Amino acid sequence: MDNVKILLSENEIPRKWYNLAADLPTPMLPPLGPDGSPVRPEILAPVFPMNLIEQEVSTQRWIDIPPEVLDILYRWRPSPLRRAVYLERYLKTPAKIYYKDESVSPAGSHKPNTAVPQAYYNKQFGIKRLTTETGAGQWGSALAFACNLIGLECKVFMVRISFDQKPFRKLMMQVWGANCVASPSSETNAGRAILKSMPDTPGSLGIAISEAIEAAVTDGSGQTRYALGSVLNHVLLHQTIIGLEAKEQLKKAGEKLPDVVIGCAGGGSNFAGLAFPFAYDKIHGAKIKIVPVEPTACPKMTRGNFVYDHGDVACMTPLLPMHSLGHTFVPKPIHAGGLRYHGMAPLVCQGIVEGLFAPKAYDQLKCYESAMVWAKTEGAICAPETSHAIAATIDEAIACRESGEEKVILFNYSGHGLMDLAGYDAYLSGKLTDYVMPESEILENLAKLAGMPKAEARKTGRW
Amino acid sequence: MDNVKILLSENEIPRKWYNLAADLPTPMLPPLGPDGSPVRPEILAPVFPMNLIEQEVSTQRWIDIPPEVLDILYRWRPSPLRRAVYLERYLKTPAKIYYKDESVSPAGSHKPNTAVPQAYYNKQFGIKRLTTETGAGQWGSALAFACNLIGLECKVFMVRISFDQKPFRKLMMQVWGANCVASPSSETNAGRAILKSMPDTPGSLGIAISEAIEAAVTDGSGQTRYALGSVLNHVLLHQTIIGLEAKEQLKKAGEKLPDVVIGCAGGGSNFAGLAFPFAYDKIHGAKIKIVPVEPTACPKMTRGNFVYDHGDVACMTPLLPMHSLGHTFVPKPIHAGGLRYHGMAPLVCQGIVEGLFAPKAYDQLKCYESAMVWAKTEGAICAPETSHAIAATIDEAIACRESGEEKVILFNYSGHGLMDLAGYDAYLSGKLTDYVMPESEILENLAKLAGMPKAEARKTGRW
Repeated sequence: MDNVKILLSENEIPRKWYNLAADLPTPMLPPLGPDGSPVRPEILAPVFPMNLIEQEVSTQRWIDIPPEVLDILYRWRPSPLRRAVYLERYLKTPAKIYYKDESVSPAGSHKPNTAVPQAYYNKQFGIKRLTTETGAGQWGSALAFACNLIGLECKVFMVRISFDQKPFRKLMMQVWGANCVASPSSETNAGRAILKSMPDTPGSLGIAISEAIEAAVTDGSGQTRYALGSVLNHVLLHQTIIGLEAKEQLKKAGEKLPDVVIGCAGGGSNFAGLAFPFAYDKIHGAKIKIVPVEPTACPKMTRGNFVYDHGDVACMTPLLPMHSLGHTFVPKPIHAGGLRYHGMAPLVCQGIVEGLFAPKAYDQLKCYESAMVWAKTEGAICAPETSHAIAATIDEAIACRESGEEKVILFNYSGHGLMDLAGYDAYLSGKLTDYVMPESEILENLAKLAGMPKAEARKTGRW
Repeated sequence: MDNVKILLSENEIPRKWYNLAADLPTPMLPPLGPDGSPVRPEILAPVFPMNLIEQEVSTQRWIDIPPEVLDILYRWRPSPLRRAVYLERYLKTPAKIYYKDESVSPAGSHKPNTAVPQAYYNKQFGIKRLTTETGAGQWGSALAFACNLIGLECKVFMVRISFDQKPFRKLMMQVWGANCVASPSSETNAGRAILKSMPDTPGSLGIAISEAIEAAVTDGSGQTRYALGSVLNHVLLHQTIIGLEAKEQLKKAGEKLPDVVIGCAGGGSNFAGLAFPFAYDKIHGAKIKIVPVEPTACPKMTRGNFVYDHGDVACMTPLLPMHSLGHTFVPKPIHAGGLRYHGMAPLVCQGIVEGLFAPKAYDQLKCYESAMVWAKTEGAICAPETSHAIAATIDEAIACRESGEEKVILFNYSGHGLMDLAGYDAYLSGKLTDYVMPESEILENLAKLAGMPKAEARKTGRW
């Protein structure tokens, strides 16, 4: 019998998060303010509590996970590492496919790994209320879940297309006591402006972020802050518990390091969570192919530029050094709502520039085909975001079949698709289309970035 | 730190199912045919494969689980036993609350525990296609999942109210390759007759069973059989893996036997799966309170009669000795679709007659209140069926707070509610009502059973 599940006990849970910023061969470029000079931490104080800002700018390698956070994470962590033996048999591949199952959290994805510490640190700082945005609804429901347990109010701006496609996600947030509205909304200046110029917009994460930040900073009480579900350093930091657990679990399974590590990437957090602890090994000499996977409908890593750009449409965020399609870009309404973001986490981008990470883009149709193969072999229904990681995994496994290599492939099963069945419906009824972004549209968007400060790509050329 | 998760490794999985029929103090009454005489196993051959019929009539205490079945069950089993420490703290109870988490299966409930062996035994017998009914959709999606993995066609008749309330369940079945239609349908004689007399009926499990059996037995190929998700002995047998695992897990947690065992009961299978291995201990002298919980809208155990009745509306099943509200009873459209069945598993009923099991009934509103307490403390969103077990658990825990007793309470967390958020929506918007069944309606339904053979309740009076 194959060993299809590798479990850790509670006392084997990691007690520290891993910070890749400590080990990057070249230092990160700083975020820039409106005047083009590096942002001082205090500037961010109306948006985030100071304890999280400290994490954001930290270059300390290991950061303690508070016991109170662990007490909540234990509800579903350590998460299982599973071996996809049924997919392996179906593909007739000599590769061993392992996946970290982040779908087991109460919100159904990896997102609570950072929602819980973010809610915790805000509560510690005396904050009473968090605002946020959500794409597919994974992040919004995760923050609602965390705020409910920790005792904070929670307000969620949900990208309209997902709000309409996924009414049950909104209900999850309501069960956990959060207030969820469709974005663009009429509740903020940013939202009203967009609604006026583009009344039929499906919305985007960039718009929703503007609204959530505005709602936080314009709240007069001083007790409201904003929480972001991806992109930022502290978010990626919190997610590294995934890769740290996976490393222990691979050891238990008798494996050394994986040959290939794969994660889908919208803002970069689930990818980073799995990949960064292995990037550490790559930096220190291990041979590992590390692949962030994006949709061809939103190809910032594979076709965007490395630039200084805003994280949101209304330019409320500092300028971040990242691969971007331009902050005004509104991606086509693919079902993988969590991957519809114009930019990418700066830490991931610096890794790409360095050659540590080798991004790939996949079409929506191919991803759903892969999701169906997954359902028919492994038996579970994956999130549309996760299907991008599965598509790349299947390609790697087929390459192993052809080359005869017995590689160890590890990917992040970032969430289940039980709230995302509308996409499967479209696929099964033949209504699903690909949205490959045309070159002209990319150039047009990038042209808008011409006036931004230049981001000088720094690399050692070691990979 | 509390130990909130008790896990078993794959090699600790039970290798045999436990058959309560071997240990009941009084033998089971036999099912009866249309002529009132006991049904010979051969009579059931057009409906079930002979290897399952043998299990149905077996009185052997332990029955081997085939390795091929275990190979599939390993995908999610052994399931976690969790301790509800957050609920305990909220209730300020000295009781210890453990729950067996059956929501972790790919279909989201305990149902695949029997769907997999049923599909396996049918395949072994040369069957190509299974038909079934489903209430809330848990069973239909579980059988679709199992047929997909084992390689059988699958046709599901889904009770109309759930078909309408839970479109995503139908999509799950489609992803797993099954064909799902609303019941009553125009595809069977039974369905057409009901549609003619009650065009607006919300449907019922009794109707859907008639349709599924008809579709199986009228298929000319001889390669179609019917699968039932609850009620029958072999179904309950397959579910005992739940209680057998829980017993090992409680030992690991340092507990002896539980003081209270609780499960919601529609047809009886998730309740029986957890409870029967502990009923064994009760029969052999242990003091355990064992509680099957039903809705007040469908109170067969607490207010129905122990009679011989059909399992379906069209009287296609043999007469079974069970607590029933009458096979023509169509329950009110409560959201716990899986509990909307007029009868109860004969093995559970014989245990009730013997005094082994002490059924309770709960109102829909109280159950949703309990589900909200669960979401706010334990953080997960439960199925409306499961909320009945939680309501009873909370009452037991509060009784412990009042008495000061440190009881060990164990309940079956039979499924998650991510596909059932419409009920939460109704609750949150104040539209949910109770449907307590009026006495007159009960008497009217029971009067219809007057012509049926008498079921002589046999009991030893030991409990």
